[in-house]
Amino acid sequence: MKHINPNTTSANQNILREENIHELISNIIKGDRFALAKGITLIESEKEDDIALSLAVLEGVKTNASSSRIAVTGAPGVGKSTFIEVLGNKLIEKGQKLAVLAVDPSSSISKGSILGDKTRMEELGRNEQAFIRPSSAGKTLGGVAAKTRESIFLCEASGYSTVVVETVGVGQSETLVNQMTDLSILLLSPGAGDELQGIKRGIVELADIVIIHKADLEDKALTLQTKKDYRNALHILKQAKSFWEVPVLEVSSLEKTGFEKLISQIDDFFKKSNEANHLGNNRSEQDLFWYENHKQQLLELAFLNSTELEKLNSVLKNKIQEGEASALAAAYQFVLKIKEKNS
Amino acid sequence: MKHINPNTTSANQNILREENIHELISNIIKGDRFALAKGITLIESEKEDDIALSLAVLEGVKTNASSSRIAVTGAPGVGKSTFIEVLGNKLIEKGQKLAVLAVDPSSSISKGSILGDKTRMEELGRNEQAFIRPSSAGKTLGGVAAKTRESIFLCEASGYSTVVVETVGVGQSETLVNQMTDLSILLLSPGAGDELQGIKRGIVELADIVIIHKADLEDKALTLQTKKDYRNALHILKQAKSFWEVPVLEVSSLEKTGFEKLISQIDDFFKKSNEANHLGNNRSEQDLFWYENHKQQLLELAFLNSTELEKLNSVLKNKIQEGEASALAAAYQFVLKIKEKNS
Repeated sequence: MKHINPNTTSANQNILREENIHELISNIIKGDRFALAKGITLIESEKEDDIALSLAVLEGVKTNASSSRIAVTGAPGVGKSTFIEVLGNKLIEKGQKLAVLAVDPSSSISKGSILGDKTRMEELGRNEQAFIRPSSAGKTLGGVAAKTRESIFLCEASGYSTVVVETVGVGQSETLVNQMTDLSILLLSPGAGDELQGIKRGIVELADIVIIHKADLEDKALTLQTKKDYRNALHILKQAKSFWEVPVLEVSSLEKTGFEKLISQIDDFFKKSNEANHLGNNRSEQDLFWYENHKQQLLELAFLNSTELEKLNSVLKNKIQEGEASALAAAYQFVLKIKEKNS
Repeated sequence: MKHINPNTTSANQNILREENIHELISNIIKGDRFALAKGITLIESEKEDDIALSLAVLEGVKTNASSSRIAVTGAPGVGKSTFIEVLGNKLIEKGQKLAVLAVDPSSSISKGSILGDKTRMEELGRNEQAFIRPSSAGKTLGGVAAKTRESIFLCEASGYSTVVVETVGVGQSETLVNQMTDLSILLLSPGAGDELQGIKRGIVELADIVIIHKADLEDKALTLQTKKDYRNALHILKQAKSFWEVPVLEVSSLEKTGFEKLISQIDDFFKKSNEANHLGNNRSEQDLFWYENHKQQLLELAFLNSTELEKLNSVLKNKIQEGEASALAAAYQFVLKIKEKNS
């Protein structure tokens, strides 16, 4: 019998409408990876009918199950996938079930995704205790990361005890991903200055754990110097979370060293975050953030379909860029258009 | 004859409806400070009719006039007002016209404002070349800072060559203010660690100029150590703007020292920002940011008045906090409510 890997099979969206929602829900809760993949595809759909179905699924899978939600970010080329593969396998060895959700801001352009057309995290992908899913969120409506949060909920319902969200540290997605995770890990290459140019401002300050990552055999002295530089910098800027001093760790995915220390720091973070009541409070604040975020998207979609929205937005943004309309005037025209269509 | 200071007289909103818009526009352009104050009051109004009037005024005052838009932020007590008073007077001595817009996140609660009930910036307030305006933006709808941007436009039309936006470095307002200014100045007290606790994460990375501010006679050694610490930290984190290395300056508003160096750095920033095409590109990006921001506010206001909105939002946010609804489900209920009211 041919083995089909659910991590690389994308669920057919057209089948979903015939899918029995109750069966889907029960299979997700059972831990069926195909059902989980289908559930995420449903959630990622931008069709208005699917929103109600998504809500039914999300409502149906609601349990007390939760996970450690970890963001992993870093510039392209720093070795995030290799790192997640090694970390993931170590966590699984310790009895965890691991889901990896990858958010790629470029996927809307290439119609591909971080993982879609590459055979990365191969070993992890074959592991029964792992679920790997590239983002295929919609191309408009700030959507790249927005649906990832609901995907996390599905993974948790499906029994995954750790969910890793991978982002490229270059765009707006980190800020959004930071609003859906508990702990943020930043990967840096040895030699601070240059490679920081690829990292968006503010990303370093979002990090809870900074890793000087050796994807290959780098200069040892440079690694140590980079580590020292960041330690000093973070010492000055440290007060983001009162209960936590951001550690700067040295990790090699090639040599598989530094992971024991990292995992003990991750455990320590969740322990302290819990004790300080931060974990729960932070998730509550995230809820309110997403309420506003979803409201805007759903409100626009309620009156115009995504093609109309894209067209109208593009016309109005053009007017702004050409100096023909101010941002406020263009926003006003947008609303007039919606009212007009609706009267 | 009694001298009335336009900086402390709040324009009566009810008069505005009878005001001849054309006269208002022409008086704003002439540099009349009462007209400018009235224009800002109109812009800050959340009544739907006033939005169209605001747009007419903003359209009417459109000129090529621009200004250096400068954000000044720092924790409460660091001495922002004293600093702006000294800096403002020095800029005016150099031939500038200066407007100060103060954004206070707490003003919505106290119904007061940073400047409203205090006699701060007294000297500057009496200067004919200065215009000082506390924010009295609406209490809901993320409004504290949102209208400040249009106020900047009015100040520019009125001939102000430098507009300073003052914020308290504790809330979300800095990020918004950063989206409407060109240059961001952060004031810190000597002795990094402790006082940083009052500064929201990410604020340091938004700064283009960091000032170790001596509001009174502090320990010299501590000032120098703080300066050194921040220089080192910023050296590691510096790459926010490729054309600009963030300077850490020592300024005393009490002794009025350090301002010549600061003003030359401000000039240098605008020169380099211009040469690197950053100034214009950054403002274009800001335009798109505000388009999205205004769209959301106007869209919600188009269907519900602000009292209804506040009530509905409060009910739904409560449901989220009580665990009765997910953020997505609550957002969906919000949209259903709007559709229902509108059918």
